[in-house]
Amino acid sequence: MQDEPEVAVLRYGHRPGRDDRMTTHVGLTARALGADRVLFPDNASQSEETVADITDRFGGPFTVERTDELDATIREWPGRVVHLTMYGERVQDVAGEIREAHREDPILVVVGGEKVPFRVYDQADWNVGVTNQPHSEVAGLAVFLDRLFEGRELEQEWPDAERRVIPQACGKRVVDGDAE
Amino acid sequence: MQDEPEVAVLRYGHRPGRDDRMTTHVGLTARALGADRVLFPDNASQSEETVADITDRFGGPFTVERTDELDATIREWPGRVVHLTMYGERVQDVAGEIREAHREDPILVVVGGEKVPFRVYDQADWNVGVTNQPHSEVAGLAVFLDRLFEGRELEQEWPDAERRVIPQACGKRVVDGDAE
Repeated sequence: MQDEPEVAVLRYGHRPGRDDRMTTHVGLTARALGADRVLFPDNASQSEETVADITDRFGGPFTVERTDELDATIREWPGRVVHLTMYGERVQDVAGEIREAHREDPILVVVGGEKVPFRVYDQADWNVGVTNQPHSEVAGLAVFLDRLFEGRELEQEWPDAERRVIPQACGKRVVDGDAE
Repeated sequence: MQDEPEVAVLRYGHRPGRDDRMTTHVGLTARALGADRVLFPDNASQSEETVADITDRFGGPFTVERTDELDATIREWPGRVVHLTMYGERVQDVAGEIREAHREDPILVVVGGEKVPFRVYDQADWNVGVTNQPHSEVAGLAVFLDRLFEGRELEQEWPDAERRVIPQACGKRVVDGDAE
């Protein structure tokens, strides 16, 4: 989020076709819940396109990129690395430390696909489990970001949006981005 | 969760093939993050099977069911109904009321697929947006449940699990469910 060290999300691994929707949801969740940037594997061009399109329409600042250097991105990250995995330490035990680190340092949040090699566990500063149960990398990312930002991400504004949803008790209301 | 009024999640709408993974993730997220039960549409048998299998291995109590009566489930729900939608009221504004209601009443959380008819908005006691941005129904459900339960769901035990993951700073450790 603005005025804070960067939070970027790295989607580690992607199978075109089969993973398109999950990878897209990782990207959209990163954007909606306060991350500044998402990095997809090089073969996730369709997900990149969808996330860029949503960002154009609903606003930023948010960046989506692709890279063929997943490991180098982790290795050379100029801050701290969090790897989300059901095998990791409990989020409720380590979120405080990570928040503390984020006051000074950019955070890279690594979200695995099906198989994540041991070197990712090894290079992460924290391996973090949002529960130690099998569920969804999208759900894990969402809870992690909400706890990292302690809800501040829900108050974000999207100054350059083309359209904006106005919260409604019942029904749908969408206005132009520059409507007051 | 045990000793609390039921929380059930209803997946409203499912396209076999295309939605299998998302629907499965809705079910697994419901289980991992404190709901007692998930209801899938009748045509989501593959997702039902996966969620039942995970529950067998990693423990319950948790129930997965299918129904061809999505609307009747909402209409006849003996408690309060929350519909998660990007058009709804802000979760940070209404979570308190919903938590209050949940002290007495079972809660049905409706998670939409692509198209949700107006009658669902109309019948819900609350239409709730986890942000008013387009992202992921799985992410929305995860943040909603974490806020509904205020993190208690992360402390759940899974007494009848066949296997159990022991949180690790680095690497993977899985033990038999009845290991100490």
